[in-house]
Amino acid sequence: MRCLTFLTDFGLEDGFVAACHGVAMRIAPATPMIDITHLVPPGDVRRGAAVLAQTVPAMPPAVHVAVVDPGVGTARRAIAVQAPGGILVGPDNGLLSWAISTLGGADRAVLLTNDALWNRPVSPTFHGRDVFMPVAAHLVTGTDLAEAGTEVDVVDLVMLASPMSRMLDGEAEGEVLSVDRFGNVQLSIPTSAAAQLGVALGSTLIIRCNRRELTAPYLETFGSAAPGDLIAFTDSAGLISLAISNGNAAQSLSLPPGARVRIAADVPA
Amino acid sequence: MRCLTFLTDFGLEDGFVAACHGVAMRIAPATPMIDITHLVPPGDVRRGAAVLAQTVPAMPPAVHVAVVDPGVGTARRAIAVQAPGGILVGPDNGLLSWAISTLGGADRAVLLTNDALWNRPVSPTFHGRDVFMPVAAHLVTGTDLAEAGTEVDVVDLVMLASPMSRMLDGEAEGEVLSVDRFGNVQLSIPTSAAAQLGVALGSTLIIRCNRRELTAPYLETFGSAAPGDLIAFTDSAGLISLAISNGNAAQSLSLPPGARVRIAADVPA
Amino acid sequence: MRCLTFLTDFGLEDGFVAACHGVAMRIAPATPMIDITHLVPPGDVRRGAAVLAQTVPAMPPAVHVAVVDPGVGTARRAIAVQAPGGILVGPDNGLLSWAISTLGGADRAVLLTNDALWNRPVSPTFHGRDVFMPVAAHLVTGTDLAEAGTEVDVVDLVMLASPMSRMLDGEAEGEVLSVDRFGNVQLSIPTSAAAQLGVALGSTLIIRCNRRELTAPYLETFGSAAPGDLIAFTDSAGLISLAISNGNAAQSLSLPPGARVRIAADVPA
Repeated sequence: MRCLTFLTDFGLEDGFVAACHGVAMRIAPATPMIDITHLVPPGDVRRGAAVLAQTVPAMPPAVHVAVVDPGVGTARRAIAVQAPGGILVGPDNGLLSWAISTLGGADRAVLLTNDALWNRPVSPTFHGRDVFMPVAAHLVTGTDLAEAGTEVDVVDLVMLASPMSRMLDGEAEGEVLSVDRFGNVQLSIPTSAAAQLGVALGSTLIIRCNRRELTAPYLETFGSAAPGDLIAFTDSAGLISLAISNGNAAQSLSLPPGARVRIAADVPA
Repeated sequence: MRCLTFLTDFGLEDGFVAACHGVAMRIAPATPMIDITHLVPPGDVRRGAAVLAQTVPAMPPAVHVAVVDPGVGTARRAIAVQAPGGILVGPDNGLLSWAISTLGGADRAVLLTNDALWNRPVSPTFHGRDVFMPVAAHLVTGTDLAEAGTEVDVVDLVMLASPMSRMLDGEAEGEVLSVDRFGNVQLSIPTSAAAQLGVALGSTLIIRCNRRELTAPYLETFGSAAPGDLIAFTDSAGLISLAISNGNAAQSLSLPPGARVRIAADVPA
Repeated sequence: MRCLTFLTDFGLEDGFVAACHGVAMRIAPATPMIDITHLVPPGDVRRGAAVLAQTVPAMPPAVHVAVVDPGVGTARRAIAVQAPGGILVGPDNGLLSWAISTLGGADRAVLLTNDALWNRPVSPTFHGRDVFMPVAAHLVTGTDLAEAGTEVDVVDLVMLASPMSRMLDGEAEGEVLSVDRFGNVQLSIPTSAAAQLGVALGSTLIIRCNRRELTAPYLETFGSAAPGDLIAFTDSAGLISLAISNGNAAQSLSLPPGARVRIAADVPA
């Protein structure tokens, strides 16, 4: 393992993220840390899971620490999970589950029960600093997963339901998975669905959402559209996405995360 | 000293923070830097002092650079302070004072008068880049504090008044010290006050603020409360804090930093 | 080259910046990266160019990666440019042009056509992760610029028009180049113009903007003004700037980027 990565909903106004960096540096001083984001909306486990799963493929071999943890201090379990592509550490509330799949599936998992690896004293409200990060820092320096705690069956890990995505008769249906800073709307419809629907680059898509029906060209990139045009494209995570060139598609189309969208090929009458 | 830490009110939209990183890397290329926060509200020395003091305990041995400096370029002094737990560098306006206490108190201090350690030319409005960070980078590589400038008596350093906190007859009174991203309200009342008032985990607190009287269970963590419930708990800095589960206590109770709050044990009539 | 620097309009809510860090770390694991900012307003090439040009002088020898790229995936070219003070990598849309000047001018430039240095597969909408950063990471480890692609004549690079700045009869005219977090207004008028106008520190400037005429003392630093006072000063980039002590000059004077401002010496009647 070459580095730590770190994703939370802690925000950037306080010293919470830095305190975790400090704890990691005391245990693993030579290990770099990549901050994925700390602006997950507070408590939004699903959003955190999506960003994490879409970012880990770009990372070098790493121990990934993720903390979006509305149940901190309760009976929810703390886990470390070994996958072929890396190790993940965080609460067992589903936050890690999509990234586990992306990294090849869980080979083994432990509950973080060995408090010898923790930061002391442990705050009941700050397991990021006192449990997750110190355990991860030990793991990145070569401590075996088994030393972090009791082994648990990987089938017992909490999994988030996958985003809705299905093929209907001549249509693909999905939901808005995330909205980025540019207002681009990422759908839970893989790029392979376009081929199944017979939609090639340059042809036109019908988009059904919010009881409206829109059309958009399916292009390789939004850079080639005129300002104000709605377009569909395959984004950097391999998912069908909607954008308005020089505009904000999520706002203009009223498409927040979770909204249902169907797409189909536009067949001239 | 193993690293630099850095706290400012510079914000993240400009290149100011990065310019300081660049200056540090030119002087101390192998030294990592931990950014504590750069989102202190502009000029809010008291907020900067609180975040700094609560974050430095998690850090490895470090030179801590803090710049919230509405008096930049005026006669306010620039200082470096040695404490048992680390070195602090910044303006002598009280910003460092609470962290100095946290790190064990000032052993010695110097005014930053040796311009041989500065970045040239010195901008009168950007001492973060041209004075504080280059001096800190020299100190972290082993330059003796005495080389940074004229020694000054530590009792002459500007100290911020401590947050109001006192025990009354059957009550503890404090002020709102900070509000975090989750809307949690941190009071300047140490967890020891709960014991003095006879409040145990699981019992009920009376909270008096804004001419209202509220009750809240005193719990180990907010994770165990029902959504919407007001609770009191000891936060990760050891201070009594108020939270609304899945809500924003600071907004709901109108409790900005500085607001007065009293707590007492709830004794059934 | 000792480090990478990184400026984008990607924002901090998503994992885009981190994905680029991950790609860099896989290619150049021992190279530190300084994030300049990722909060350039989406697509604002001019703002990105200004922040980049004003920040690179503080950096150690570096490969600077900048991505504000509304034309991603279109025919706009991707370039790497060698200057005496560093290497710059990004889209050929003018974003790099002012920083190229700051670093001493372009010695040579290549189009990024050698896809052997890219991250695969290449997303048409995320050249930051798949083209610019991996090429930069190879360059920082010593790969010769010529290996990145086809050499191109440096006079063919896209240059942004310089900000308007000129001396009139007894006046200097410029535009608002940027507004920082404090509301300070940076004008495209170099500090040398003050001397040409006969304005010395401590004397009074006439400021003409938005059909108003204001006066302000020309001071070394805003710290010496009374709260609420409008002052002019030379900022850390060597440009005449306007500030309201403890206030927000850009808002109070309605001076967004691009607004025209003229300054003159105040000669008593």
